[in-house]
Amino acid sequence: MSSIHDKKIIIAGAGLVGSLLALRLLQKGYQVEIFESREDMRKQSISAGRSINLALSHRGIEGLKLVGLSDQILPHAVQMKGRMIHTLNSELLFQPYSIRENEYINSISRRTLNIQLMDAIEKWDVKINFGNRLSHFSPEENKFTFTTKGNLKNELVDCCLIATDGSNSIARKFMLDRSAELRMNYNQKFQDYGYKELTIPPGEHSKFLLEKNALHIWPRGHFMMIALPNPDATFTATLFLPFKGEQGFELLQNTSTLRTFFHKYFTDALPLIPNLEEEFFENPTGHLNSVKCSPWHYKDQILLMGDAAHAIIPFYGQGMNCGFEDVVVFDQLLDQLSNVEELFQQFESSRKPNADAISDLAEDNFEEMRDKVSDPVYQRKRALESQLEKKYPNYYSKYALVTFRPDVSYSEAMIKGRLQDEFLLKICADQTEFNDIEMMKIYNHLQSI
Amino acid sequence: MSSIHDKKIIIAGAGLVGSLLALRLLQKGYQVEIFESREDMRKQSISAGRSINLALSHRGIEGLKLVGLSDQILPHAVQMKGRMIHTLNSELLFQPYSIRENEYINSISRRTLNIQLMDAIEKWDVKINFGNRLSHFSPEENKFTFTTKGNLKNELVDCCLIATDGSNSIARKFMLDRSAELRMNYNQKFQDYGYKELTIPPGEHSKFLLEKNALHIWPRGHFMMIALPNPDATFTATLFLPFKGEQGFELLQNTSTLRTFFHKYFTDALPLIPNLEEEFFENPTGHLNSVKCSPWHYKDQILLMGDAAHAIIPFYGQGMNCGFEDVVVFDQLLDQLSNVEELFQQFESSRKPNADAISDLAEDNFEEMRDKVSDPVYQRKRALESQLEKKYPNYYSKYALVTFRPDVSYSEAMIKGRLQDEFLLKICADQTEFNDIEMMKIYNHLQSI
Repeated sequence: MSSIHDKKIIIAGAGLVGSLLALRLLQKGYQVEIFESREDMRKQSISAGRSINLALSHRGIEGLKLVGLSDQILPHAVQMKGRMIHTLNSELLFQPYSIRENEYINSISRRTLNIQLMDAIEKWDVKINFGNRLSHFSPEENKFTFTTKGNLKNELVDCCLIATDGSNSIARKFMLDRSAELRMNYNQKFQDYGYKELTIPPGEHSKFLLEKNALHIWPRGHFMMIALPNPDATFTATLFLPFKGEQGFELLQNTSTLRTFFHKYFTDALPLIPNLEEEFFENPTGHLNSVKCSPWHYKDQILLMGDAAHAIIPFYGQGMNCGFEDVVVFDQLLDQLSNVEELFQQFESSRKPNADAISDLAEDNFEEMRDKVSDPVYQRKRALESQLEKKYPNYYSKYALVTFRPDVSYSEAMIKGRLQDEFLLKICADQTEFNDIEMMKIYNHLQSI
Repeated sequence: MSSIHDKKIIIAGAGLVGSLLALRLLQKGYQVEIFESREDMRKQSISAGRSINLALSHRGIEGLKLVGLSDQILPHAVQMKGRMIHTLNSELLFQPYSIRENEYINSISRRTLNIQLMDAIEKWDVKINFGNRLSHFSPEENKFTFTTKGNLKNELVDCCLIATDGSNSIARKFMLDRSAELRMNYNQKFQDYGYKELTIPPGEHSKFLLEKNALHIWPRGHFMMIALPNPDATFTATLFLPFKGEQGFELLQNTSTLRTFFHKYFTDALPLIPNLEEEFFENPTGHLNSVKCSPWHYKDQILLMGDAAHAIIPFYGQGMNCGFEDVVVFDQLLDQLSNVEELFQQFESSRKPNADAISDLAEDNFEEMRDKVSDPVYQRKRALESQLEKKYPNYYSKYALVTFRPDVSYSEAMIKGRLQDEFLLKICADQTEFNDIEMMKIYNHLQSI
């Protein structure tokens, strides 16, 4: 029986989740060794505005609070208080995420966040082994090997490895190679959609050219564009298109079809993206894939965490938040359990239903964002929910449960949220205005769900 | 644009599907090279009765007819005309598969079948490269490497490879390594059940100790045992148990619990299995896993076929039959298409919905075999179906559509068969006897499905 207190913990992957986990484990006094396949991002310059931003929300903030960094990191974010819908004829429609004051999401650069976490790790006099790729695992010897580009090998024995090496996890591949032994269920799924990142630069005097405190959406039914603000007054826009068919990437092969396409569907955005052609034809087309698997651990030797265990598509803005919540839950379990394998098993038991739930919710939300947000019934439902929130501070929409209520698990939020939506959409299909008594009845029914 | 007529076709895996395919391609005049990772089974002796048997049915027989081997092979099989249900108190109940004369399934040894196919291949003066494992694929050079145990390498360039290397396909792993490029969806699933093979030897004077021409089932709700006859008057019994829980493998850890378990649940079978303990504790516990994936091809370089493309669980007895049908369909497409990539795409378009259907049907059938066959309503339904078949030779049950009607695709059989079952089970829940007029109405309704 191996105790987590006696083991060196290897963290494979110093991305957001790996860095947060490493920092927390260092704070708790564990012996930690950190490896990262990429080079140190702090030594590489990336032009401003080209960094990808993420939506940090309450579950993720809990993770930052755990390591005492939320106050230091949040000032680097831009608050997004709701969705700004851009209609086909360039009208704007604002849908607040919540009526409660502290309930907004935060656009933050992945790079900034990761650097803050890495800097905090190094204050513990621990160095991150950059440029070291997990290359081999020998279960019999309980040995992990990391290899540098120059083919230098780092071999570690009798440790346990927590794999935070992302959606293409190498550690997960090691486990897949032992599928029969583990009876490993594994499901990877690619969307028929890809994405392309585009930049909206600032106006004169560093002016934001769209409403600063909003997540902008151009919902177009089978496709959409979104844009998130950055502190430097740029926006990072992301265009989501199917690969095939009408309005698919395959038909946008030259400047003129691209321009015609943007002119028709993103009229108000077109003048804001001066480098449209270069960016569209030079930036890679991103994929959207998800992974569900089980088990998440191999004996007491490997545990998958974050995207390595449960990669999801980005449409609920919860990938990082879910990963940070993994760390919060793992931290709690560390106080209760010391047997490594039991700890790993309990972690999966606790997190797997919630990771599955947010994955399913993210799939639903893609349809919601690209299509339903512009539907009149849906819009009436959102308006009614805002009224409910105003009148009954206890009312939480599905989005608010998922995004602002870390005390409610993703799976509870999914079940409750879906039932609420079903009920409200039915009501709003027939009726546009609600008086106080009707509102009370609606609220009472929602409370009973 | 590469034509299949100009290409050497490499077949990776000379199991049942690979051997049938190779033989057919040789008959059609293609240039074929065959590799098999295992050694030549004809040079290895296996004790009689220990070979695994398979249920060969009409779709599989179509494959054998295609290469002109059905008349030669079928005499090696034992006909199974229905299910013989062994109840908990050792009563026997026979459920015929069909009332029509030529509709039975054939218990045949995997080894016999494979050897016949290999022998037929070698009549074409082609040698199968045994002990050659597919070890490397370089898409840029279009190069495949096979490696022997002695580390001799066979490199082949500018060929196309058809991977019939089974449910753990190496070629599929090469494709999975290129998941993002292919946007490859992949789902592998392990049942919570394992299986153990046991032997029922012949009685005196080579007498079959159970009804010879039946597939025997001991349905026990959450677990079951089955037994298939072999020509040497043995039966190969297979015990399917959950890994965990009551009646799970984990609780059968010693001779006495095993004997008590068999005595309680398989009273009539226990005296027929003299080596129960040795076999149970020495034979490996098998896994039951399925794979669904897409795409099935990599450019014009690799095509997956048989279990490599669509491994299924064995409960419809259709794994090999489905694989043989792959070969029949591929053979037809070869007469219509020459462009390799188009051929590969069309093959998947044609086969994928049917492979998915038989996979789903096999999952349903596990529940049917271990549980429903002993349910009174289900039994009345089977009896009614036999009556219908007698009266209306055009009536085909779901099982008969899947098993005896190669002219009906698996997906059609699934859709039609499920609707029929739903309707008949509803009727049989309320009523036990049906007069001629009622039968006619039932038949007419079934025809309209």
